[in-house]
Amino acid sequence: MFTLKVMPRFYETDAFRHINNTVVAGWFETAREPIFRIFAPSMQPQDLPLILARIEVDFVAQIHYGDEVTIETGIAAIGNSSFVVRHTAFQGGREVARGQAVQVHFDWQSAASAPLTEALRAQLAVHLLPAES
Amino acid sequence: MFTLKVMPRFYETDAFRHINNTVVAGWFETAREPIFRIFAPSMQPQDLPLILARIEVDFVAQIHYGDEVTIETGIAAIGNSSFVVRHTAFQGGREVARGQAVQVHFDWQSAASAPLTEALRAQLAVHLLPAES
Amino acid sequence: MFTLKVMPRFYETDAFRHINNTVVAGWFETAREPIFRIFAPSMQPQDLPLILARIEVDFVAQIHYGDEVTIETGIAAIGNSSFVVRHTAFQGGREVARGQAVQVHFDWQSAASAPLTEALRAQLAVHLLPAES
Amino acid sequence: MFTLKVMPRFYETDAFRHINNTVVAGWFETAREPIFRIFAPSMQPQDLPLILARIEVDFVAQIHYGDEVTIETGIAAIGNSSFVVRHTAFQGGREVARGQAVQVHFDWQSAASAPLTEALRAQLAVHLLPAES
Repeated sequence: MFTLKVMPRFYETDAFRHINNTVVAGWFETAREPIFRIFAPSMQPQDLPLILARIEVDFVAQIHYGDEVTIETGIAAIGNSSFVVRHTAFQGGREVARGQAVQVHFDWQSAASAPLTEALRAQLAVHLLPAES
Repeated sequence: MFTLKVMPRFYETDAFRHINNTVVAGWFETAREPIFRIFAPSMQPQDLPLILARIEVDFVAQIHYGDEVTIETGIAAIGNSSFVVRHTAFQGGREVARGQAVQVHFDWQSAASAPLTEALRAQLAVHLLPAES
Repeated sequence: MFTLKVMPRFYETDAFRHINNTVVAGWFETAREPIFRIFAPSMQPQDLPLILARIEVDFVAQIHYGDEVTIETGIAAIGNSSFVVRHTAFQGGREVARGQAVQVHFDWQSAASAPLTEALRAQLAVHLLPAES
Repeated sequence: MFTLKVMPRFYETDAFRHINNTVVAGWFETAREPIFRIFAPSMQPQDLPLILARIEVDFVAQIHYGDEVTIETGIAAIGNSSFVVRHTAFQGGREVARGQAVQVHFDWQSAASAPLTEALRAQLAVHLLPAES
């Protein structure tokens, strides 16, 4: 499991005086960066062989400005050429959002999905989460 | 059904040279603004009795800079105190993304969800989409 | 002079219930896109031989959600390898922001600034603004 | 002087494969948050008696994805009801951007600027930068 701590930024608030919902999708992308490093250790973006197929976010409670948010991230499932990342965000010890992202291993040359190699599968498996009850 | 035309902005691109995925969640929020007007004709944000409970976005094809995107939006389902909005985005005549948002009618005073009145249900029903086959 | 009409988006508001200031820098970038087209008619971002050297924004009045903003953009000065773009934003007929951007003609191959050709200077000159009194 | 460390986020890149310029204005706002705390210790945004009158950003070198950015922030000048904040951003030990922001002490009740009290001036003065040579 990966843990990212994010301090909400003022420009991420909206007129409801909480963090705007669209921001959370961005934070979750940021929380996936350690996974991006598995696929592109150089962190040169053009070397990153991943595309995003789907996101889901559940907004569980309002997220406040002024308090740090902790995002826990792990792998929920590993498929043939794709995998599912699961995120849970906490603020003040309370769950405020959760979500999933489906990332596809992608060959930019052929513009097609590519099977996950055994080496990649093994590295992802290290971060597998227990199945949700 | 509501139609929003969005011209992608340069700062919405990312290092993959396409529109960043997190941007689409923001565009879909913008595409819901005619629905916000049903709930807050003044468009004073503090008068808007809606919170977002959940979003889903499927990224169907890469979205390019330089070409307009058309987003079609309608109501997929109406519940007791919430409703589901469905979005489909097209670029160059091709579907590039689709998604859903669950919005909850919310009473900021009591900080609790509030049943949709008959008047609100009727206004939402005008924009009901056919069931997906 | 170029004119861009922008409808403020809900996620562009902040906790002051107005449009966040950092958003205006993005709108002004968007208002420069017709100028980008002069340099890269294809609008392929990798073909755009321009970098941004400096921006200035004066926030003259609060920008509200719910009302369209009009941004007028022209060329304030043309140098050897750079030029200055000036923007003025209006809402409800009133000036709400103004700003400048210094764009440098850039050769990505040699990673150095490049003189503006006569053809480019002529195209920019079409949009020259009168000197500020 | 205040120091903020920012890890660039993937969605902050643009099609030039560097960090988009408009992002830096947002980072600088974030770098001013310790100053916001002087004016609103609660960090309740509605208690913050400050508006932004002007920003300037000089983009000195391209900012890369994958490497931390350090932003040093201090007070450049203190006026009657406003003050100037100066920011310098470094990446890999090299200056990549610098900028200024003019913040105005503002009374939201009367919608007018308000003189800085002696107590506020003293707290700002602690962070005064040496004059630029």
